[in-house]
Amino acid sequence: MAEQSNIPAELLQAIQRGEARVVDLTHTLGPQAPFWREGNAPSPFHAKDTATYRRDSYFGREIQIPEHSATHMDAPRHFDPAGKSIDQLAVENFLTMAVVVDVSAAVRSNPDYRVTVADLENWEKAHGPMPRGCLVLLNTGWASRWPSEKQFMNQDAEGVRHFPGYSLGAAHYLLEHVHPVGLGIDTSSIDYGPSKDFEVHRLTMFAGLYHLENVVHLEELPPTGAAVIALPLKLEGGSGSPARVLALVPNEPPARR
Amino acid sequence: MAEQSNIPAELLQAIQRGEARVVDLTHTLGPQAPFWREGNAPSPFHAKDTATYRRDSYFGREIQIPEHSATHMDAPRHFDPAGKSIDQLAVENFLTMAVVVDVSAAVRSNPDYRVTVADLENWEKAHGPMPRGCLVLLNTGWASRWPSEKQFMNQDAEGVRHFPGYSLGAAHYLLEHVHPVGLGIDTSSIDYGPSKDFEVHRLTMFAGLYHLENVVHLEELPPTGAAVIALPLKLEGGSGSPARVLALVPNEPPARR
Repeated sequence: MAEQSNIPAELLQAIQRGEARVVDLTHTLGPQAPFWREGNAPSPFHAKDTATYRRDSYFGREIQIPEHSATHMDAPRHFDPAGKSIDQLAVENFLTMAVVVDVSAAVRSNPDYRVTVADLENWEKAHGPMPRGCLVLLNTGWASRWPSEKQFMNQDAEGVRHFPGYSLGAAHYLLEHVHPVGLGIDTSSIDYGPSKDFEVHRLTMFAGLYHLENVVHLEELPPTGAAVIALPLKLEGGSGSPARVLALVPNEPPARR
Repeated sequence: MAEQSNIPAELLQAIQRGEARVVDLTHTLGPQAPFWREGNAPSPFHAKDTATYRRDSYFGREIQIPEHSATHMDAPRHFDPAGKSIDQLAVENFLTMAVVVDVSAAVRSNPDYRVTVADLENWEKAHGPMPRGCLVLLNTGWASRWPSEKQFMNQDAEGVRHFPGYSLGAAHYLLEHVHPVGLGIDTSSIDYGPSKDFEVHRLTMFAGLYHLENVVHLEELPPTGAAVIALPLKLEGGSGSPARVLALVPNEPPARR
């Protein structure tokens, strides 16, 4: 019987041989996680012990969390009443090539920075066209402010948040030229902090994309060549879900001597 | 510049070319999901709207769920107070080769069936040695009873549950011969329904393994050759977490004509 190729097995073997590595792009989800305080959401995170070693011989909890807690995925339903809910998204789109656009230098002098079309064009001049259907990740450097809610949400005296995001123009450019499955960012929102109408959300959710927000460790990814596995819970009718997000990064081969 | 091999990219291309497929091994998490009713856990699943299209221009919820809801992962901390909590597990162990042991025929005549050492030895006679460090998945056929809690938990008049699981002997055999990263099953517990002391949990959690419980669609996996990606939330100090579980299955090449 001829040995058939098994590409999933080859991937795992490559990781074991050190030819690729797994990077966890996920913040820990607990009471310290910064939270988007609004509306009637009473609290960021609650955990209650429902089984204890002493009484039950084992330990278990019940957790209470917003769908958009810590590192999470937005489904189109978040803004589009007719859009897919988180449990309806095609699982194939959860495994995708990623490009990372680094605007952290611009953000240092302007926390309200929004990535521009020129930023994307310059990226493509340096790294080639973004692959169709990829996941676009914006590294703004903001993850280093986690877990300080004060620094991460960065509200001014009027309660206006200040953190970077995508410009509407950049989102249009990506939809037209790259057709990404999703957009990701290391802040709480792909719309920048001062946004009142969430115009980028509105564009991209109605276009059927998903978002990954509050991701971390983007600085460990190359601009191109990493794959991302982003898995939300299969929450029935959900607007989104906390997610576990991993990157698979090919390692450079050792230099020849 | 020489093209370097990028095995994560090759995997995604193979999926796009139809050489491998993604199978979702996850039940939907909602109010209909069967639930292990016990202790002071008040309810299986609650979702509350915290943002509405009308008031907020978008939709979001807060969810309340047991850590061991629907398709989920147990961390060693579930039984071992000194064991790793769900956020402490090595992400590399979430991507693993899987073997599937089918005992659904035996379960049809005995719902309390526990997989035996002989079952595992017979599997290895047919399919070769289980790969070291793999995930062992037990297909008992029980997933077809979901989402009927009555049928899935299958309690008798005395409240004793009846569903299949691993025998302690089989768990010992696996720990000694296979050194798996985890054990999985399509029922609510790797210990069979009537168990009072969860002896298999106690053995394997103290040995540092994780469990996947309430998985589904195992009948779509080959006995060997599938890879599994099982991602729990990164819940700080958690005993476990609802998880999204996908399998990557190599497709048979089309027959030559």
